[in-house]
Amino acid sequence: MKSFDTVAIVGVGLIGGSIGLGMRERGLAREVIGIGRTQKNLRTARRLGAVTHTTVDLAKGVAEADLVLVCTPVGRVVEDIKSVAKNCPPRTLISDVGSTKRAIVEAMDQISLPGECRFLGAHPMAGRETVGAIGSDPNLFEGKVVVLTPTPKTQADDFDLLEQLWSQLGAVVVQMDAAEHDRAVALTSHLPHAVAVALAASVPEEWFRMVGTGMLDTSRLAAGGPEIWKDIFLDNSENVLMAMDRFGRHLTRLVAAIRGGDEADLVALLSEAREIREAFGNRSPDGNKEK
Amino acid sequence: MKSFDTVAIVGVGLIGGSIGLGMRERGLAREVIGIGRTQKNLRTARRLGAVTHTTVDLAKGVAEADLVLVCTPVGRVVEDIKSVAKNCPPRTLISDVGSTKRAIVEAMDQISLPGECRFLGAHPMAGRETVGAIGSDPNLFEGKVVVLTPTPKTQADDFDLLEQLWSQLGAVVVQMDAAEHDRAVALTSHLPHAVAVALAASVPEEWFRMVGTGMLDTSRLAAGGPEIWKDIFLDNSENVLMAMDRFGRHLTRLVAAIRGGDEADLVALLSEAREIREAFGNRSPDGNKEK
Repeated sequence: MKSFDTVAIVGVGLIGGSIGLGMRERGLAREVIGIGRTQKNLRTARRLGAVTHTTVDLAKGVAEADLVLVCTPVGRVVEDIKSVAKNCPPRTLISDVGSTKRAIVEAMDQISLPGECRFLGAHPMAGRETVGAIGSDPNLFEGKVVVLTPTPKTQADDFDLLEQLWSQLGAVVVQMDAAEHDRAVALTSHLPHAVAVALAASVPEEWFRMVGTGMLDTSRLAAGGPEIWKDIFLDNSENVLMAMDRFGRHLTRLVAAIRGGDEADLVALLSEAREIREAFGNRSPDGNKEK
Repeated sequence: MKSFDTVAIVGVGLIGGSIGLGMRERGLAREVIGIGRTQKNLRTARRLGAVTHTTVDLAKGVAEADLVLVCTPVGRVVEDIKSVAKNCPPRTLISDVGSTKRAIVEAMDQISLPGECRFLGAHPMAGRETVGAIGSDPNLFEGKVVVLTPTPKTQADDFDLLEQLWSQLGAVVVQMDAAEHDRAVALTSHLPHAVAVALAASVPEEWFRMVGTGMLDTSRLAAGGPEIWKDIFLDNSENVLMAMDRFGRHLTRLVAAIRGGDEADLVALLSEAREIREAFGNRSPDGNKEK
């Protein structure tokens, strides 16, 4: 079991906080430095034990790190990696947790980071509608997929190190090309978010009291942070628009079957969707096995 | 607390079974007769304690009932109520649990049931993706909305009786006109189902492994029974199509904001949806308060 002396986490939100807490509880890091913008959230992270030290000064925070994880919103990741590389020890490995990967990975591939620092992109596919360190959960990544996006420049040792780290946090590590990753998550992650947003927006206030468990589940993602999701949708817009178009075609087929009163076609569409949904696996909303 | 001597439940699926189990656990009925089509499911219901007696003979099953609850799919409810009224004691109250109400209530309003039996429509807004009596839960209705749809013909005593029964099962009883009910549930219940179906159908098999908690939640309803939902969509097609059209307009706005790279508009749409989703209340997928 590889353990780190000092890990720096830039952006101690739900994901950053959960990584810190998970590593500390498993003895994977001696020190975890939390770097953020607001003292309040950093205090919460420290109180929860997600980090051992905190600072709002990125340069100071990464000065001793032997691993830096940038956990800021996708729109800020590239700039944050560059700032980290200027201030951390030479040859430090830097990773991220961005929900989109192509733009970040391509930007990093085109430059050489100072001090022979290396970047390897990661995307833990875990999330919740809580904002900030307060929701940190050491087991957030248990059974979740974490995608690593190596390029021809990636060193095998770096890949192994991150693969081991995420495995120790309970995740299932999958290797993927960054562009392929973005096409996949447009369908499996960004599309359900867009759908949940449009769904919630469709309910007029007079019927809020008639909202049951079905609507609550189906629209749950709409409670996510608007700024974070604006970045994701725009960063991955081409794939997201393709995914939404694909969804729109399935919705149109459903409309046509209902309008035409076509029982056989309707049952066929419902059965097909049911089969797919069942193939997704019987995981509960917590990612655990359903009862 | 009103309790019944003999309650007959026609169709002992998740809802019928949960009513039987809930009534028996709360001492609301001495005998619960389960009437169904297959011995296997009826045996399950009896084994779970959801019913005390079972039969596949509807006439025999309702012969002694002082309350009959028809819990069959919406497409069969009207015929089942007529069969019940021909065979139950005079002046028996008959209710149902159909997810759509206008067609059923209008059909009942136009006829006089034999033996001065009365019908009063009900819709417990609770459900799960389990089929049959096996999923019966005595607390399924705790905190859930149950809509009663009286008409000018409805007797006050009948309304009070059903209101009391559902309240004793833990439900929040809401009174509504049947047509208004159908417009409301088209948006709050049938639309999320349609959306979940189109969403599940949009995911190609190669990306199943990339499905995370967000997609699982948002598509959960797609696992529902195709036959049941075919009936609901066709019975309430006009309202469902209006709801889907409304959803489509919100989706189109989202597509336009993403395509146009309009950050301000995108944040506005996401914020609006988030506000609505939060106003739905903080109930978990089980209908209980979220942690």
